[in-house]
Amino acid sequence: MEFSSKLLERAVNEMSQLPGIGKRTALRLVLYMLRQPKEQTLALSEALQSMRNEVKFCKSCHNISDVELCEICSNPKRNETIICVVEDVRDVMAIENTSSFRGLYHVLGGKISPMDGIGPHDLNIESLVHKVKAGHVSELIFALSSTMEGDTTNFYIYKQIKDCNITTSTIARGISVGDELEYADEITLGRSITNRIPFESSIKL
Amino acid sequence: MEFSSKLLERAVNEMSQLPGIGKRTALRLVLYMLRQPKEQTLALSEALQSMRNEVKFCKSCHNISDVELCEICSNPKRNETIICVVEDVRDVMAIENTSSFRGLYHVLGGKISPMDGIGPHDLNIESLVHKVKAGHVSELIFALSSTMEGDTTNFYIYKQIKDCNITTSTIARGISVGDELEYADEITLGRSITNRIPFESSIKL
Ligand SMILES: [Zn+2]
Ligand SMILES: [Zn+2]
Repeated sequence: MEFSSKLLERAVNEMSQLPGIGKRTALRLVLYMLRQPKEQTLALSEALQSMRNEVKFCKSCHNISDVELCEICSNPKRNETIICVVEDVRDVMAIENTSSFRGLYHVLGGKISPMDGIGPHDLNIESLVHKVKAGHVSELIFALSSTMEGDTTNFYIYKQIKDCNITTSTIARGISVGDELEYADEITLGRSITNRIPFESSIKL
Repeated sequence: MEFSSKLLERAVNEMSQLPGIGKRTALRLVLYMLRQPKEQTLALSEALQSMRNEVKFCKSCHNISDVELCEICSNPKRNETIICVVEDVRDVMAIENTSSFRGLYHVLGGKISPMDGIGPHDLNIESLVHKVKAGHVSELIFALSSTMEGDTTNFYIYKQIKDCNITTSTIARGISVGDELEYADEITLGRSITNRIPFESSIKL
């Protein structure tokens, strides 16, 4: 691609660093920005910048937050002894949207995936195990997507806490196998939380 | 969508102002940024900002440029008497890529489209007509996509300059009717420039 402007070229190149945004899409987006009022691009640019600079991860559950302890963790009405283990922030949003869960979350930040070079130590697993071993938890709900990586991750965590005398469960498989949580409809997802089953009965031990 | 962070929410909202980027895609992109080094987001943000603030439109052809007169218009090796009329900057890039054209361009900035509320006065038509009437032009090549809007726009311009004793042509329709120029392969597009035909013979007058 030959650009008539270095400024344009740089903007397109930076945009096309984002996943799923090719050079052509980036060019289309950037030309759109040039047709819109200047303020719109400046607002976008400013929002991305302050988000990246200022956003925090909750020191307890690793959810994205504007403060040290996220709104969910600091809400006294939530049951802090039940912890729902999820892959990422979108899963927290999806489950919160169903209003079916009043415990806390633990955001792993991904799934164990040797193919992608993601091992247990790249995820927020240690702090979860620590929480359980400290005795503050009565139940752990595994809410990872039911893919091979999700199952591997569940099992890895389970092995480390199975002697802790807590209840472990997985969300009911109302959601079809292999589907991502965030795309499930609210009712299915809500029901799968309500009908959660003991983790032991979900795996062949 | 319930966000756990105002900073995240604002970034997602701003991203989803862009065409074809829904809230979900915006969230996916923004979460990706949070996993990448901070510098990447700051570079993107900075690139968009300086592009939007500093980019110029060539005072002669309206192409995007970093200087007042773009590189093409200021190149003494180009034939300034032949002007290729295009819809937008991407068409200039597409034709330049074929290396088959050594004249100049005129970027209209769109097509006449009453359905979208775009009239002749929203486009860079007046300056083109002015250029032709000033006698600097020997040939005008219409290179708009062959849609109804493209044909309307060609004809609108043609009517105003048809008494000026210049050659008018349209690019050869090697490109299938209705296709966008920017998606044509180089060879087809190059050939359609070389085999351009008199404008009069492309329309039923
Ligand atoms: Zn938290
Ligand atoms: Zn120019």
